[in-house]
Amino acid sequence: MTNESKLSFDTTITNLGPAKIQTPVRYPRYVDESRPQTLIMTGEELSELDSDTITMNFEKAGPRAKIYFDPSKTKCAIVTCGGICPGINDVIRAIVMEAHYNYGIRTVLGIKNGLRGFIPEYGYDLVELTPERVTNIHHFGGTILGSSRGAQDSEEIVDSLERLNINILFVIGGDGSMRAAKDIVDETVKRNRKISVIGIPKTIDNDINFITRSFGFDTAVEKATEAIQCAHVEASGIDRGVGLVKLMGREAGFIAAQATLAMQEVNFLLVPEDQFTLDGDNGLLMALERRLDHRNHAVIVCAEGAGQYLMASETKRDASGNPKLGDICGLLVSNIKEYFDGKDQESNIKFIDPSYIIRSVPANAGDRVYCGFLGQHAVHAAMNGKTGMVITQLKSSMVHLPLDLVAIKRRNLNIHSDYWCSVMESTGQQVYYNPE
Amino acid sequence: MTNESKLSFDTTITNLGPAKIQTPVRYPRYVDESRPQTLIMTGEELSELDSDTITMNFEKAGPRAKIYFDPSKTKCAIVTCGGICPGINDVIRAIVMEAHYNYGIRTVLGIKNGLRGFIPEYGYDLVELTPERVTNIHHFGGTILGSSRGAQDSEEIVDSLERLNINILFVIGGDGSMRAAKDIVDETVKRNRKISVIGIPKTIDNDINFITRSFGFDTAVEKATEAIQCAHVEASGIDRGVGLVKLMGREAGFIAAQATLAMQEVNFLLVPEDQFTLDGDNGLLMALERRLDHRNHAVIVCAEGAGQYLMASETKRDASGNPKLGDICGLLVSNIKEYFDGKDQESNIKFIDPSYIIRSVPANAGDRVYCGFLGQHAVHAAMNGKTGMVITQLKSSMVHLPLDLVAIKRRNLNIHSDYWCSVMESTGQQVYYNPE
Amino acid sequence: MTNESKLSFDTTITNLGPAKIQTPVRYPRYVDESRPQTLIMTGEELSELDSDTITMNFEKAGPRAKIYFDPSKTKCAIVTCGGICPGINDVIRAIVMEAHYNYGIRTVLGIKNGLRGFIPEYGYDLVELTPERVTNIHHFGGTILGSSRGAQDSEEIVDSLERLNINILFVIGGDGSMRAAKDIVDETVKRNRKISVIGIPKTIDNDINFITRSFGFDTAVEKATEAIQCAHVEASGIDRGVGLVKLMGREAGFIAAQATLAMQEVNFLLVPEDQFTLDGDNGLLMALERRLDHRNHAVIVCAEGAGQYLMASETKRDASGNPKLGDICGLLVSNIKEYFDGKDQESNIKFIDPSYIIRSVPANAGDRVYCGFLGQHAVHAAMNGKTGMVITQLKSSMVHLPLDLVAIKRRNLNIHSDYWCSVMESTGQQVYYNPE
Amino acid sequence: MTNESKLSFDTTITNLGPAKIQTPVRYPRYVDESRPQTLIMTGEELSELDSDTITMNFEKAGPRAKIYFDPSKTKCAIVTCGGICPGINDVIRAIVMEAHYNYGIRTVLGIKNGLRGFIPEYGYDLVELTPERVTNIHHFGGTILGSSRGAQDSEEIVDSLERLNINILFVIGGDGSMRAAKDIVDETVKRNRKISVIGIPKTIDNDINFITRSFGFDTAVEKATEAIQCAHVEASGIDRGVGLVKLMGREAGFIAAQATLAMQEVNFLLVPEDQFTLDGDNGLLMALERRLDHRNHAVIVCAEGAGQYLMASETKRDASGNPKLGDICGLLVSNIKEYFDGKDQESNIKFIDPSYIIRSVPANAGDRVYCGFLGQHAVHAAMNGKTGMVITQLKSSMVHLPLDLVAIKRRNLNIHSDYWCSVMESTGQQVYYNPE
Repeated sequence: MTNESKLSFDTTITNLGPAKIQTPVRYPRYVDESRPQTLIMTGEELSELDSDTITMNFEKAGPRAKIYFDPSKTKCAIVTCGGICPGINDVIRAIVMEAHYNYGIRTVLGIKNGLRGFIPEYGYDLVELTPERVTNIHHFGGTILGSSRGAQDSEEIVDSLERLNINILFVIGGDGSMRAAKDIVDETVKRNRKISVIGIPKTIDNDINFITRSFGFDTAVEKATEAIQCAHVEASGIDRGVGLVKLMGREAGFIAAQATLAMQEVNFLLVPEDQFTLDGDNGLLMALERRLDHRNHAVIVCAEGAGQYLMASETKRDASGNPKLGDICGLLVSNIKEYFDGKDQESNIKFIDPSYIIRSVPANAGDRVYCGFLGQHAVHAAMNGKTGMVITQLKSSMVHLPLDLVAIKRRNLNIHSDYWCSVMESTGQQVYYNPE
Repeated sequence: MTNESKLSFDTTITNLGPAKIQTPVRYPRYVDESRPQTLIMTGEELSELDSDTITMNFEKAGPRAKIYFDPSKTKCAIVTCGGICPGINDVIRAIVMEAHYNYGIRTVLGIKNGLRGFIPEYGYDLVELTPERVTNIHHFGGTILGSSRGAQDSEEIVDSLERLNINILFVIGGDGSMRAAKDIVDETVKRNRKISVIGIPKTIDNDINFITRSFGFDTAVEKATEAIQCAHVEASGIDRGVGLVKLMGREAGFIAAQATLAMQEVNFLLVPEDQFTLDGDNGLLMALERRLDHRNHAVIVCAEGAGQYLMASETKRDASGNPKLGDICGLLVSNIKEYFDGKDQESNIKFIDPSYIIRSVPANAGDRVYCGFLGQHAVHAAMNGKTGMVITQLKSSMVHLPLDLVAIKRRNLNIHSDYWCSVMESTGQQVYYNPE
Repeated sequence: MTNESKLSFDTTITNLGPAKIQTPVRYPRYVDESRPQTLIMTGEELSELDSDTITMNFEKAGPRAKIYFDPSKTKCAIVTCGGICPGINDVIRAIVMEAHYNYGIRTVLGIKNGLRGFIPEYGYDLVELTPERVTNIHHFGGTILGSSRGAQDSEEIVDSLERLNINILFVIGGDGSMRAAKDIVDETVKRNRKISVIGIPKTIDNDINFITRSFGFDTAVEKATEAIQCAHVEASGIDRGVGLVKLMGREAGFIAAQATLAMQEVNFLLVPEDQFTLDGDNGLLMALERRLDHRNHAVIVCAEGAGQYLMASETKRDASGNPKLGDICGLLVSNIKEYFDGKDQESNIKFIDPSYIIRSVPANAGDRVYCGFLGQHAVHAAMNGKTGMVITQLKSSMVHLPLDLVAIKRRNLNIHSDYWCSVMESTGQQVYYNPE
Repeated sequence: MTNESKLSFDTTITNLGPAKIQTPVRYPRYVDESRPQTLIMTGEELSELDSDTITMNFEKAGPRAKIYFDPSKTKCAIVTCGGICPGINDVIRAIVMEAHYNYGIRTVLGIKNGLRGFIPEYGYDLVELTPERVTNIHHFGGTILGSSRGAQDSEEIVDSLERLNINILFVIGGDGSMRAAKDIVDETVKRNRKISVIGIPKTIDNDINFITRSFGFDTAVEKATEAIQCAHVEASGIDRGVGLVKLMGREAGFIAAQATLAMQEVNFLLVPEDQFTLDGDNGLLMALERRLDHRNHAVIVCAEGAGQYLMASETKRDASGNPKLGDICGLLVSNIKEYFDGKDQESNIKFIDPSYIIRSVPANAGDRVYCGFLGQHAVHAAMNGKTGMVITQLKSSMVHLPLDLVAIKRRNLNIHSDYWCSVMESTGQQVYYNPE
């Protein structure tokens, strides 16, 4: 029996109004809105169920025959929010190029330093984003617009949009920013302003709901494998060496797991989704000792959000509801050292934290292609008058998703999946997991 | 109305016999053979139809609860055929590691230099593939086993398999090699030998039927973009510079198209799937002239199989059924030079052929992950007693496909697809295509 | 007995006049012009003598206490000539940054497309080179100014310098361009114009006289080794594979030799400085046969100017005094194929020509440092009123050299040197060299 | 007046005895020991004097016509000591290849885990280093032999050398290891054993006396610039961002300075050789504030040994003679944060510590060439019967130096040099240095 009946998602996209203008896009596609994109999503992808699948209908991305905004009078804005990840500049570039060359839109404004850029008291300038200005930015990591964390008052933001006569706002950001984008949509609706708000979900942790592939993820994994290789070299270059690599992943171990698959030197992988103990016959420390005795070196990859319960019980530090993560890698380093010192055995730990190096590199070719699609399709959707939605790839299709759907919750690694079994086959670390 | 009724593919996989032995794999997955993987494939993926989709059932890849071969008595062999591409060594490594560590198989033999390695008269040695031997091979491009092109007599091959007591044969190769693998299967059936033959499809052109993502493709595209960037730099470094890059793609322009999307400096893309003319108002030469007049430099990416009809009519060389491709880039260089010389205009063509550099690099992280899956699942399938099939990823699932299905024909770029429209949006090259 | 008495070089640098203005440079160095830089140069470096050394005095590079030009009224120009190589943009950037930030010079003009940019009939625009304009250009290969080959009338050039009120001209180019720079100096002297002309020698072949390390060379070698590795992978991936890599080097095999040392997979190195035969017991073909019989694959690196005498005698093609090089690699491919076909032996040649890929990449860290020094010191020299000179590094010192000295002739590999012996030790290719 | 009279270094190399055997090396060089390599060394290179130079004579490296050891009976050993750096495997490979192919030596042993490998109680195995074993090791960072820190009893080491019948010992290590090598030499002399001990100096900090270029340094700088670029991207991606990069350099800032020159985004460079204050008008904090006010982001590069006096006075932590470095970057982070918080100004610090990533990568092409020379020449020197010496490059020559000379003290950046002035020109950080 399947679980299909249990799950139901609303994938309806809102339009500002009927699109009546002939598109200037020269490559007509066959997007017939009456015929949606039908996909079979699995539990692994949705983190909703274990082994079953659900058939869903999505609105296809792509240019429409008719557009809502008159390109000659359309003004766009782009804002980038939250931490950086590879590919943000590629998305910016793709939006500007698509708007300029394929629609003939004359003005795309860059908002500086995230949503703060809308708030007058910060006093940031606007950036005019012309093709000349953006032509080379994809060669650089980060965001040329700057970013900031946290929400801003949506009334102030819409005031600013009105003051600047902006018709279309592209928000590149994480799930928090997608909620902020939803608030902006609500405010525009309240004021009855015809402003399109389109989100491009960004998350280095790959943990936004329904976003099975976030841009920059492949690049981040590629870069993470370099750090793992360095840890392997360090660990192998010394007697009883232990290379410990901290990777991103506050609540989800996607990068750590994928990098482990990509660089088959990892012996222990620790992620937030599964529990492990340090002590006891099934604990990490004894498993590490066996590994060192047997092979003389070991590599541990640890997602930053792993083992947080160890801190609660063992270090008593993080008793409050404080979302700040405990320092699991610090805990590992001290426990490993103490354990082997206590047994009068040598151990040489080399700890590598490559986080800023991973997230600040330019996108690789695969991510550049994907960011190009995201930018192109964001413009197509906006010009058609859609709002309150995001662009993403599901399976091999580009689709539209309501902001609500991606903002409500986060994805996790499904540790009962084929994928996770492959990861475990690759590390061979069976003993200490699932201590119960 | 949909075209679903027109299409029907047999996805049944053959088993050598009932699997009765308990698997030694420690990470049980939930592969229930009575419940297949259901996927909705699109015309773009199948090159079969334009805009419709078809729902199909595939056998899921993954370890089974019971296996057919007794690991302690199982002997495997790996052979690599055809031209090299990134990731072959990764697949070899993954097969060896999976067989050794997760199944406890003691012997994996490497066959040297392709199918020739089975033929005694060549006198090649066998290579013992141990974990120690393969542990670092993924850092290198090519194949440690060597390769060769062309088929060999399947009776002689099966003689050899019998002589060596091989139970499982892994064939890494292109569509031709998949047909050869099918012949081997037929011969084993004729002789009633319980030998499992599993294919891992390999194609730098990404053009094998049903193989929507061939391993090494992402890496090849990444490397191809470096050559395009060089062409752009060369073309920009001189007055009226034209950078011309030849990329792989005998019958399908996948690499050329994807690299064009990834490196947005391409102004003209030429692929086998669409026609273009050199002369006339809609021809390439006048379009190039306009580009040089306007921007002073241009980048052309040409798949090796593009514009073959130009050779037939213009150069009279290829009148026979000879499959050897005409030298389209040579033709372009001479025609471009002649055209601008004739108009007394300067032109400076820089021609780059990076083919061997592209295909001989090690796989990137994404391909390494994929190759790891292919190797793991190939062993799972074989140990379960399956034969005459290949492993591949469809959508985001790993599945089994009959050898027949992948060997019967080749995939092409669908030039009526969203994908192709995105490519055209990226180059902006509307004028000279589809001359009729 | 030493050869010192035989050699004598004039290293005197000309000044436009006495420098009377206090320098604005805030980091005073201790360049005392009365105390020159004394260096002991060896025959290997000068290609002048075999094993002896010569002690020479050079003017040290560096800021002087007094400057000749008033920064507030100084106008500079930069021109880039000849083929591209890694680091040109770094030199441009360093000149602009040094002139702007350390001297307070307001105007640096970029001349488009080489010396042509001075000739009105070409109608090229000038480029204003501000810090903002150049801040990121070192991330890109090639030259942002464009280039062209060949000289232009020096009277027209000086007309242009006068018309633009340019006080300082920086010429980045090869030995031909250094001769053109000398002509410009002579013309300014004839007209009694106080214009400083400073050369920064550029040569991908590393063959300019006295320029023992040309910028971009290390980067080119790094990139060349990638192509050699690809050739090695291709050759190893097939039975009796031969990887043939063509590298730059019309008259000098520096890149080919250094890349051979850096990538120890090369079995045969062919350079213009030494002769080899194809046939006979000591010839390349039999040596190659022995290698294939013994090891089954081989890598040949060939400088483009190697073996030109083989073309004269064997192919009769290049009878005229034509400086265009014969296609030595084409000759090798056909001869190797013919030789093994004639013996009914297999051979599989993979030919790689990475020239444009090598020269168009951005500079590596070592070259970026060097280019920074070249740019800084070029500005220091010019502001002090020097002219008719180039900046270069000799040993570990930055010095000034008269244009004459670098322009009169070219360097070659000294094949009687320790360096060459190390190369030969690395390839092990003793047999066919020096057939007499 | 020069300082030449003040300085005098003994560069005499000891021989085990007269070399009487004809060399098997096929490429005779012209090393005439009666004619030394004469070099003019500057104060910058020696850190001995400020602006003067000294002419010195060195023994040239290279094969000799006669050798001391009979290759057919010679047994070599290689040991690698101390922290890893790029290129160690290249040196190992070059020694093995030279010994095997050019001298015909049959046995090269690898000693595991540094000098400990000689001490029986550790019980490490020996590694047989054949050409097959080492052929691909240069593609990997670290050392295949493993390493350890600290000296071991030289009597036990020589016991071990005798027990193994080792004639030649190659020690790859830092200045401490060179002192240990000297102790081994002394012990062999005491016992009258004819064992050659040759050092190959290794230091990621580039601070060994007389070793003006240590192998791996260029590669480390290249990798360090990537981290600086990431810091720049991070700092630019946020309002008032500060990128802080910690680089190696306990007593010498060579890597930090060179990386600063190579990646011109650095605004503040802190090295052990010069002092700076945090507070006051000339202090780092106010300079940083001015930079943020003016440009909104800043990059600081800090050598790990910089500002140690700040810890003594401000943090009172490191009062003992403990050589462990104070955490200067931790101090900077907390002081910067406190300073701007105190002024109610925003600041966003991104701290990157790339040390293990920098030192564990494979060598780049330039270092590979250099490591090849070091290995070749170490074998040449040993086979000629020399002992108690190291191989290094001085200027552009390969020479022999007595172990004493390199082990007595360390090099520093000369902050009164042209080089340092170029660094300061590049950062523009004049204000807070040299507060007195």
